[in-house]
Amino acid sequence: MSTGISILGSTGSIGCNTLRVVEFFGDCFRVVALGAGSNIELLAEQVARHRPELVSVKTDECAFKLAALLKERNVSPPPRIRVDGLVEVATHDWAQTVVSATVGAIGFVPTLRALEAGKRVALANKETLVMAGELMTRAAAKSGAELLPVDSEHNAIHQCLRGEKRAEVRRVILTASGGPFRTKSYREMEAATVADAMRHPTWSMGAKNTIDSATLMNKGLEVIEARWLFGFEADEIDIVVHPESVVHSMMEMIDGSVIAQIGVPDMRHAIQYALTYPERCPSELPALDLAKLSTLHFESHDAERFPCLGLAYRALRAGGTLAAAMNAANEESVQAFIDERIGLTDIPRVIEEVMDKHTTQPLNDLDVVLATDREARQDAAIAIKRLARNTQAA
Amino acid sequence: MSTGISILGSTGSIGCNTLRVVEFFGDCFRVVALGAGSNIELLAEQVARHRPELVSVKTDECAFKLAALLKERNVSPPPRIRVDGLVEVATHDWAQTVVSATVGAIGFVPTLRALEAGKRVALANKETLVMAGELMTRAAAKSGAELLPVDSEHNAIHQCLRGEKRAEVRRVILTASGGPFRTKSYREMEAATVADAMRHPTWSMGAKNTIDSATLMNKGLEVIEARWLFGFEADEIDIVVHPESVVHSMMEMIDGSVIAQIGVPDMRHAIQYALTYPERCPSELPALDLAKLSTLHFESHDAERFPCLGLAYRALRAGGTLAAAMNAANEESVQAFIDERIGLTDIPRVIEEVMDKHTTQPLNDLDVVLATDREARQDAAIAIKRLARNTQAA
Repeated sequence: MSTGISILGSTGSIGCNTLRVVEFFGDCFRVVALGAGSNIELLAEQVARHRPELVSVKTDECAFKLAALLKERNVSPPPRIRVDGLVEVATHDWAQTVVSATVGAIGFVPTLRALEAGKRVALANKETLVMAGELMTRAAAKSGAELLPVDSEHNAIHQCLRGEKRAEVRRVILTASGGPFRTKSYREMEAATVADAMRHPTWSMGAKNTIDSATLMNKGLEVIEARWLFGFEADEIDIVVHPESVVHSMMEMIDGSVIAQIGVPDMRHAIQYALTYPERCPSELPALDLAKLSTLHFESHDAERFPCLGLAYRALRAGGTLAAAMNAANEESVQAFIDERIGLTDIPRVIEEVMDKHTTQPLNDLDVVLATDREARQDAAIAIKRLARNTQAA
Repeated sequence: MSTGISILGSTGSIGCNTLRVVEFFGDCFRVVALGAGSNIELLAEQVARHRPELVSVKTDECAFKLAALLKERNVSPPPRIRVDGLVEVATHDWAQTVVSATVGAIGFVPTLRALEAGKRVALANKETLVMAGELMTRAAAKSGAELLPVDSEHNAIHQCLRGEKRAEVRRVILTASGGPFRTKSYREMEAATVADAMRHPTWSMGAKNTIDSATLMNKGLEVIEARWLFGFEADEIDIVVHPESVVHSMMEMIDGSVIAQIGVPDMRHAIQYALTYPERCPSELPALDLAKLSTLHFESHDAERFPCLGLAYRALRAGGTLAAAMNAANEESVQAFIDERIGLTDIPRVIEEVMDKHTTQPLNDLDVVLATDREARQDAAIAIKRLARNTQAA
């Protein structure tokens, strides 16, 4: 029997890689529902190929366009098409596994609903756990849903933990590529263009994740994610910069032994792992040739040039809604940088300002998370406007 | 309740480190029996400190000397002292765990008896498995004895395997430091002195193991050991040279994921792991600081300069008694090199000659192993004599 799969964010980088993995496995998996935004050409191709029962798009216009494209391609029967139907995609009856791969806060509610419905969630959307890890893990515990990380670092930790007891782990060590500004000066970072920031040295990802890697906020989000996925406290989570990105992360045991997971930097590894767990299956990816790779480097990160990481530790230590506020401010400021309204080094300024202004509250329910997200975005918009004026004045 | 420990080879490098680990753990372990050779001063110190019930030494003379030294130190009551009593040490009633840390063939029979008696064996003596892995694993399976590897490579594989299914492992990758001749020419290796060969870059070990590391026979023995400890075939065991010796070994899964065990190069890690397994306990060793270490290197080995590794693969593929013959020829030729009777590059010549001459037989019982060992040593002596004459003539 094949496993039913829903994908939130099917036209993004993780979504497309998930479909490649599904294709490689032939009849083992069946795509039952796809959720996308506005990349309708690609979505139409995916629908024609995988024949999901349900598709969600962003707007009515997208829905009309998709229907027309599918008619052109003679896709029959056509899927049900919903506008803003990510929750329906995430809770589709035929889906045993939901790949949560939208970027940013938009995937939050659908992912929570999938966990409440007891689906296995293969989670690529970091922001979901950053905003409300407490609610997510509580929902999973209640319904018995499995939460499997798809980003390479947490997937690595999941693999390292397989034969180990949580109580015998001293700390996890998340590796960071260091991004395109690893060896650059602060002055160069101040002058960085969007194109500079998009030159990620090892991983191919979407724009938001790539900018997050350039500021190291990516790693900050992952620190918070590690808290909710595995229960590690802030003091038990360390970062080491590793430019080759082949050691995906490590775990230090209380006896000093370090277990590491290593592989080629390709997201299909982690996706496949999350889909086939607890089994491992042959993959279409090439094996890693360490002798050919020859040299691996490790170094500490520079907290002065990369203040986002410190902000994330602050949010994790504070608990409650502060991480959700930080996440919202980060999303807004990254978008403002992509739109060339502010500079790269303004991103942590916006986030810090929003965090300073935020009154942290306990994470009791969904409403407080959504309210925090809304307010923090408003506060971020104010900070961004002021910084943008300063930039133009300068 | 404390666990009773017997140590075969207590005055060697592994033996001494085992006693350091035992001391660190206070009352958790109790040393019940020690087996040593002729380093009686050190043995007397160990006895005075750990108060074993039984001690074995090499000769009558050693026994008299030990008794005298213990009397001087007022060790009362004195232990029972046996000559050539390694089997008694290995099967002592009070011992739950036997650390098999003699070097070479001498530990073979006592280790087999410990396994037959159902003891947990922490095995540092590679030669034991190389000579007759089939008999050893058969004995362990029959009595239910646990066999835990103490050398860092197999200990690493044991750790990597904890959460994995054997059928999902594609291959193991044993790391090799490359030894002191990694970057030297064949000509330089021909002219190498014993002092040159003893300069091991990362590990501090006894003479036999250090010379084995210089010829890479050490890695050859480990390839065969991996066969018997974990059931990997020759084609499933690879070698990668890693001069820093902090990645202790790796395991590639069928999905392409590589699990590695990393740590400071100190044998106490593996010893402690074998003594406390399946639990992990805090250790007195410093944690590994990868950022401080900064760079890790990996490269292929040069089969032309290091033919011993190829000979070991040949022995493993042939099965039966050939590995025992290879092991005996290696021990004799390493000793001849240490005695300056032959050169370093003569070692593989002696081994190959003995292997060519040997008629491989099935490994049915202990007698065939011991007969193979005896004959191969005689054949090795002949080859060594001829090569020594040539050396003097040259």
